[in-house]
Amino acid sequence: MIQQRSKALKDWMHENHIDGIICQSRPNVFYLTGFDADPHERLLAKFLFPQAKSFIVCPGMEVNQIENIYKEGDIIGYNDTEDPWKKIQNACKKRNLHISKLAVEQGISWERVKKIEKTFPTVELVEVDHAILSQRIIKSEGEITILQEAAKLADFGVEVGINALKEGISEMEVLATIEFELKKKGIREMSFSTMVLFGEKAGDPHGSPGSRTLKKGDAVLFDLGVVLKGYCSDITRTVFFDHVKKEEQEVYEIVLKAQERALQACRPGEPISQLDLAARQIISGHGYGDYFPHRIGHGLGIEVHEYPSFNETNDSPLQPGMTFTIEPGIYLPNKLGVRIEDDVLITEQGFKTLTKFPKELTIVPTK
Amino acid sequence: MIQQRSKALKDWMHENHIDGIICQSRPNVFYLTGFDADPHERLLAKFLFPQAKSFIVCPGMEVNQIENIYKEGDIIGYNDTEDPWKKIQNACKKRNLHISKLAVEQGISWERVKKIEKTFPTVELVEVDHAILSQRIIKSEGEITILQEAAKLADFGVEVGINALKEGISEMEVLATIEFELKKKGIREMSFSTMVLFGEKAGDPHGSPGSRTLKKGDAVLFDLGVVLKGYCSDITRTVFFDHVKKEEQEVYEIVLKAQERALQACRPGEPISQLDLAARQIISGHGYGDYFPHRIGHGLGIEVHEYPSFNETNDSPLQPGMTFTIEPGIYLPNKLGVRIEDDVLITEQGFKTLTKFPKELTIVPTK
Repeated sequence: MIQQRSKALKDWMHENHIDGIICQSRPNVFYLTGFDADPHERLLAKFLFPQAKSFIVCPGMEVNQIENIYKEGDIIGYNDTEDPWKKIQNACKKRNLHISKLAVEQGISWERVKKIEKTFPTVELVEVDHAILSQRIIKSEGEITILQEAAKLADFGVEVGINALKEGISEMEVLATIEFELKKKGIREMSFSTMVLFGEKAGDPHGSPGSRTLKKGDAVLFDLGVVLKGYCSDITRTVFFDHVKKEEQEVYEIVLKAQERALQACRPGEPISQLDLAARQIISGHGYGDYFPHRIGHGLGIEVHEYPSFNETNDSPLQPGMTFTIEPGIYLPNKLGVRIEDDVLITEQGFKTLTKFPKELTIVPTK
Repeated sequence: MIQQRSKALKDWMHENHIDGIICQSRPNVFYLTGFDADPHERLLAKFLFPQAKSFIVCPGMEVNQIENIYKEGDIIGYNDTEDPWKKIQNACKKRNLHISKLAVEQGISWERVKKIEKTFPTVELVEVDHAILSQRIIKSEGEITILQEAAKLADFGVEVGINALKEGISEMEVLATIEFELKKKGIREMSFSTMVLFGEKAGDPHGSPGSRTLKKGDAVLFDLGVVLKGYCSDITRTVFFDHVKKEEQEVYEIVLKAQERALQACRPGEPISQLDLAARQIISGHGYGDYFPHRIGHGLGIEVHEYPSFNETNDSPLQPGMTFTIEPGIYLPNKLGVRIEDDVLITEQGFKTLTKFPKELTIVPTK
């Protein structure tokens, strides 16, 4: 699999007369090596060339782990007092490479760009992102299987959260319970900071869970996901505790209808923008347009937010194998927030949701 | 506090004939605004000028939260279909600014550097890092109080972990228990992926917790920390379950002696390198030099690994108010790992450890 991915990049270098690629973002390094670790400020990068043997440069203490996973090229370790760029220069010299055009990630730091320009003084830099992302956007069967498992664990997280609800419990206590059950199942990292928001707290789309305790009649918004074998899930459900007020039920039904309309638009060839517009039309039609301040969703895979962006101006067509979120919401500041989010896969025929937790209006009874 | 920090940067701009600063890394934005959030791929940046009013550019849905925290300058929101750089250009025009020399972070992405160069076509970029980091490196009393609280929670995490140890429990179950108790205390994020490693698993300094279960005679390595009010803690303790083998006890005593020697070197004016060398000398003197593959520690504050690096080549002097880790270790691959780590504050007189969990050799009894 890694070799197929590398081959596509080598072909791309040939076609575009590029002498090398440096990948150093954590997700791209994982995608192109199978090795996933946060090297903090240290350089962990894969170098690819049209012909010569590729190599990884990594902190010395990662060498053992990488050796077990990565078999394609050389592994060059460095310790905390060595300059990795010297080692890179030597590795290129040993390969007799003349690097005049080098492809790097858009997200590479200015500091590293300066190091590259010092290491290869006459180099011209070009962007590698599209060449990698156009591969990453279409998930393989193996990737889809993992994403499905990750989505199942997100469903489970919502279930644990709902079961934990009782009068007087705090947002953080519910959050702790959800993560405890997931970590016991072997999940080391959530895909982002878990969100559990009660009542008016959910009226802020980026609110923070805290000591707010649960009262009868509160809406409860869960937004969570896990990282499983390097892949992310991301689900949102909103339920009501004990009873639901009439206006809140109306808002819920509008968001649900908007989400279903966006899902119905999911099929190969459909422009991404149409998903956003389908949901936005429903929400605006009911007079809540100003209270849906974000895009309909985002690509999902190795990163919880990844390419492409699902907004009303992106006219690229959906393709089989794409995975992303659909998550409309209505936020009434200091009052109520409702969001419903699924992870979606585009199939040859249409779509499939990876998250399966029920979406009909749910009133959680008082214990 | 925020205004003092901004004032120092304005003075620095005056002295160096710099027309503006852009800060967009999460830690620097927090340090200079009080607002802490992960904007994912979206731009969240603070702009400072020698004379004109500063401003923050942020995703529209963050505006409400930032308004509650940040009072120094303007807040400019943008939605997912707007170009924030257009809004930045307008804000600068409105202020009648002529930006010819702009200070940016070393870590800013190449993509954003290109946006800046397009927005300010004749601009010269210089580094802002030292001007900010030389402030961040010295913690205020308020920051120290938070770091102390965060360290206390790290101590608590180790205590929870030790109390959870029993024959047959897995690394992930212990990890889940530690994080559950911390999250119930209101901790939303750990400062890094919690590490709980049993026996030979700890022989890899960057091992991953998994389904390995606890056996009598295992060493147990805990490495964990919390984020509290935007500040991090980071502790490592190694204990033994049921009994300790003679060689393992020897290794433990060497690491402990190395850690104590490094601590004894902690005082204002001492070169940072001496801390690393003091510990390394002990470990090498016992023949384990090759098994201590990393630096002695790292700065600690808003980031869990922050400036400066505590290695054998950094001869900068320690200063009162600096906080960092001291964490020597010995790793025998596939056999044993011992690391002991404290969070340390340099005082006028010498040092103080913020983490307080006992360090004498601990044998956890079988239940």
